[in-house]
Amino acid sequence: MRHFRLNLQTISPLTRRIFTSTSSPSTTFAKPYHIDAATTAAAMAPSKKDKAKKELVKTAKGTRDWYGEDVDLLRDITSQITGVFRKYKGQELRTPVFEREEVLKGKYGEDSKLIYDLKDQGGELLSLRYDLTVPFARWLALNPDVSEFKRYAIDKVYRRDQPAVAKGRMREFYQCDIDFAGPCDPMIFDAEIISVIVEVFEALEWNGRYTIKINDRRILDGLFEVCGVPEDKIRQISSAVDKLDKMPWEEVKKEMVETKGLDEAVADKIGTYVTKKGGRDLLEELKKDEVLQANEKVKKGTEEMEKLMKYLAVEESLDKVSFDLSLARGLDYYTGLIYEVVTEGSAPATVSGSEDSKPKSSKPKKQLGEDDDRSDDPSVGVGSVAAGGRYDNLVERFLPGANMPCVGVSFGVDRIFSITKARIAKGEKFSYITSSATDVYVMAFGGKEFSGMIEERMHIRRLLRRAGYIAELAPKEKPKPQVQFKRGEKAGAPFAVILGEEEQARGEVRLKQMGLPEGHPEKDGVLVKVENLVGEVKTRIDQRNNEAKTSQLSV
Amino acid sequence: MRHFRLNLQTISPLTRRIFTSTSSPSTTFAKPYHIDAATTAAAMAPSKKDKAKKELVKTAKGTRDWYGEDVDLLRDITSQITGVFRKYKGQELRTPVFEREEVLKGKYGEDSKLIYDLKDQGGELLSLRYDLTVPFARWLALNPDVSEFKRYAIDKVYRRDQPAVAKGRMREFYQCDIDFAGPCDPMIFDAEIISVIVEVFEALEWNGRYTIKINDRRILDGLFEVCGVPEDKIRQISSAVDKLDKMPWEEVKKEMVETKGLDEAVADKIGTYVTKKGGRDLLEELKKDEVLQANEKVKKGTEEMEKLMKYLAVEESLDKVSFDLSLARGLDYYTGLIYEVVTEGSAPATVSGSEDSKPKSSKPKKQLGEDDDRSDDPSVGVGSVAAGGRYDNLVERFLPGANMPCVGVSFGVDRIFSITKARIAKGEKFSYITSSATDVYVMAFGGKEFSGMIEERMHIRRLLRRAGYIAELAPKEKPKPQVQFKRGEKAGAPFAVILGEEEQARGEVRLKQMGLPEGHPEKDGVLVKVENLVGEVKTRIDQRNNEAKTSQLSV
Repeated sequence: MRHFRLNLQTISPLTRRIFTSTSSPSTTFAKPYHIDAATTAAAMAPSKKDKAKKELVKTAKGTRDWYGEDVDLLRDITSQITGVFRKYKGQELRTPVFEREEVLKGKYGEDSKLIYDLKDQGGELLSLRYDLTVPFARWLALNPDVSEFKRYAIDKVYRRDQPAVAKGRMREFYQCDIDFAGPCDPMIFDAEIISVIVEVFEALEWNGRYTIKINDRRILDGLFEVCGVPEDKIRQISSAVDKLDKMPWEEVKKEMVETKGLDEAVADKIGTYVTKKGGRDLLEELKKDEVLQANEKVKKGTEEMEKLMKYLAVEESLDKVSFDLSLARGLDYYTGLIYEVVTEGSAPATVSGSEDSKPKSSKPKKQLGEDDDRSDDPSVGVGSVAAGGRYDNLVERFLPGANMPCVGVSFGVDRIFSITKARIAKGEKFSYITSSATDVYVMAFGGKEFSGMIEERMHIRRLLRRAGYIAELAPKEKPKPQVQFKRGEKAGAPFAVILGEEEQARGEVRLKQMGLPEGHPEKDGVLVKVENLVGEVKTRIDQRNNEAKTSQLSV
Repeated sequence: MRHFRLNLQTISPLTRRIFTSTSSPSTTFAKPYHIDAATTAAAMAPSKKDKAKKELVKTAKGTRDWYGEDVDLLRDITSQITGVFRKYKGQELRTPVFEREEVLKGKYGEDSKLIYDLKDQGGELLSLRYDLTVPFARWLALNPDVSEFKRYAIDKVYRRDQPAVAKGRMREFYQCDIDFAGPCDPMIFDAEIISVIVEVFEALEWNGRYTIKINDRRILDGLFEVCGVPEDKIRQISSAVDKLDKMPWEEVKKEMVETKGLDEAVADKIGTYVTKKGGRDLLEELKKDEVLQANEKVKKGTEEMEKLMKYLAVEESLDKVSFDLSLARGLDYYTGLIYEVVTEGSAPATVSGSEDSKPKSSKPKKQLGEDDDRSDDPSVGVGSVAAGGRYDNLVERFLPGANMPCVGVSFGVDRIFSITKARIAKGEKFSYITSSATDVYVMAFGGKEFSGMIEERMHIRRLLRRAGYIAELAPKEKPKPQVQFKRGEKAGAPFAVILGEEEQARGEVRLKQMGLPEGHPEKDGVLVKVENLVGEVKTRIDQRNNEAKTSQLSV
């Protein structure tokens, strides 16, 4: 139910190039399969017959296959995130991909139309999960003995939304959530969740390149009351205010007055507040504002905000946070603190500076069907990379009388992935990115009557694998030398072990570093006794890794 | 499309007890949430109103939530398996949970009725994936530039099958597959897949407690031809033979003759072959059988089986393998080698020995609806824990003319999980099981006017977390001492840091090992300077870990 969309929108030109370069694969990626399969298929300008074939095998609209460097990077990123979750004592919960229809019913307001339903094939009516929050609340209600639970989850969720595949706005996308359920004194868990956010982005090496915008629903609602917003308009006005990261105040005001029918004087009053952001200074200002403080909600909200800031100071997270009165967050169910993490390019490029903030409506818009890809629509923005807040009453909707206040955050893994990928393409290094390259390619060379030594090659491969190295060989009984070299190169193996019948007779193999220049004394490799091979490989690989580390440090 | 069902069936009495002990949670599991939520809910014998509530929040039939020790164990198991996959240069592929309907259509024979379809909400017709093999073939067809790919995948698949939740026979269950796609000389990749199987079960520490049954479709089909089975009956007879692990030969023969209408003499001839199993000896026997060798399929199959055994000898896997002429595997699409891994209790208990192999039909059977749980049905067996084979023509069905032979294996993660869990309950230890227990619980004690020292506790927690330890505190401003101790105990923390105002004034805290006996000199903890705390904690935790290791070694 948390209203966090992992759409990747209005990304940097570089990222966009990576995601949309369908006609010529980017040379920064060596493997032939780094582009989303659906995109690749589209790029092949196929004949009619080919097209029919492609139709048969393409992925469903708004979905993608994850493979190659993409899935490796995604795995490295999520492993950093879940590592932090576990340090904060998060426990994993995996719920089924579908829930009984009534579990999801009435939880998402008008977004309910985006829910995927399963066909009625007899038995229960089922729907695909829309987020990970409602299933968590359902689980808490199903397990009333659980009085406190710090749950994390990383899984795919499903929304029949307008897709924009090349921008990462998908119908199937990842959410990566941590939520603390159970009573606590004001802001204790909340501050801990903010610390999780800080530690996650540190673990992802985004040092300082993000801001955690925070606000409190109680402050915001109280402020609307004080300004004179009628009760029944508060949610609408709240969502209008939430657009201040994408539109200038004048536009938002126009929406309030013209579309929502708010009195202009009231809107102007709101404007004096919601354009403010800061830290402790802003809090002090609100505390001194007697008109505001007369409102119970504002009073409570600012008191607790003060506690939060005290705790964030202890956690050394206060400098990452911006108290932003324009932050409202979409969903109804937040009851206290709310937050959203933004990074470079989170807001659409067209409105990030006021000078080029042309109203989007002035641009000619192509009419797009709901299945059409919106990758070329510039009004689609990146949005936040993480978001969440406190929701104290959701579990009660499943289990009346339950006292199970919750606070949590959802990380936009797909967006974080896209931004990280773009940064890698720009040459940035991230220390947590693992390599799965082949260590050693095992080959055999010989003359015309040569057997190919397949069993001998397998034996050597086995020795190396047992020692923990990734070793491969050409799956042919008698592969040609050039085939073996090519495969070794393609696998990115830094070393080759070369078998020959003469060497074999002496219990030896040739160990060769790949890619040595002509004339290098070890260009043809060195002879090694089979019993010493693993040790020799270890020495050389360790040495190579150390050199790589040193050269990275000196950069 | 691989016909591998991860149903957990006819498991050992102990496992069954764990899965079905709904009325009193097993005391071997400390946490309150170790039982499947649906089961727990059912066990609470709820009032009518409660029942309505439970109805609202239960999981869909045949699905479960994974949490607590279960999900931790599942994660440890899959991490061992994927570790081996990556060592064998497997690359991950994640496909969407649903495919376009036509991708799955016509791939699963009469099991197609088990496919979950999505409701037609406009746009494409979609179905949930039934396995990971067809999506892989679809991906290969969509990426025709990929000439070789060693793909692994671990994901959930969906079958509208009769569920038996307490036995782990689920409608949503995990598959964990590795498949090598691309041409190779006979049996080279096949032998490598068998090595993957061996190394996976070694990594899972199932030392010697499993058998890899192997056979070859070509040998089996040729043998049926030689025995005189009519062409159009070969697949039916093949599936009858496949039941030899669950029924005695007499029953299988009866099915062949009475149900399938096979000539009795032909059935008897088949019987002389398919009851044989062995190793190289059996292969030699087949090679000497001139009648058999006159059949081209048998000839080819035995020649390649000989190669396989040679390779398995090099890989030191031959002793794990049983050449079993009764192994047939259900699906049509296997074209060569097939295999299945069985372990203790894979066959239903009632037929494992011939003396107690009463025909199941003699037992009174309750009529069960298709949504009903079959956990109490003794005819439901465990089956294999991994299975697979060579399928050379599947990709062609998506991409005519494609030359993309494949061979792969699917591990039954849910079954492996259940068996491992039962073994742990019996006291077995597995070195790969990770702990996520809290290291240190941070507390504060004081008199009546005591502030509770929440910020100071947070500060200490932060120091410990930054040093990599899992540290927690009670989320109250002024928690009672006994509350803090109870929470510390519940968290399983071996150490507590206790803050007090006097100690604080001296820059000190008390570091205490939990659970020391009365009278122990350090029962009340030791005073430590805050700046030395992390070092002291490290020393003690390292020491404790070393002691644990030593005591495990000496067991």
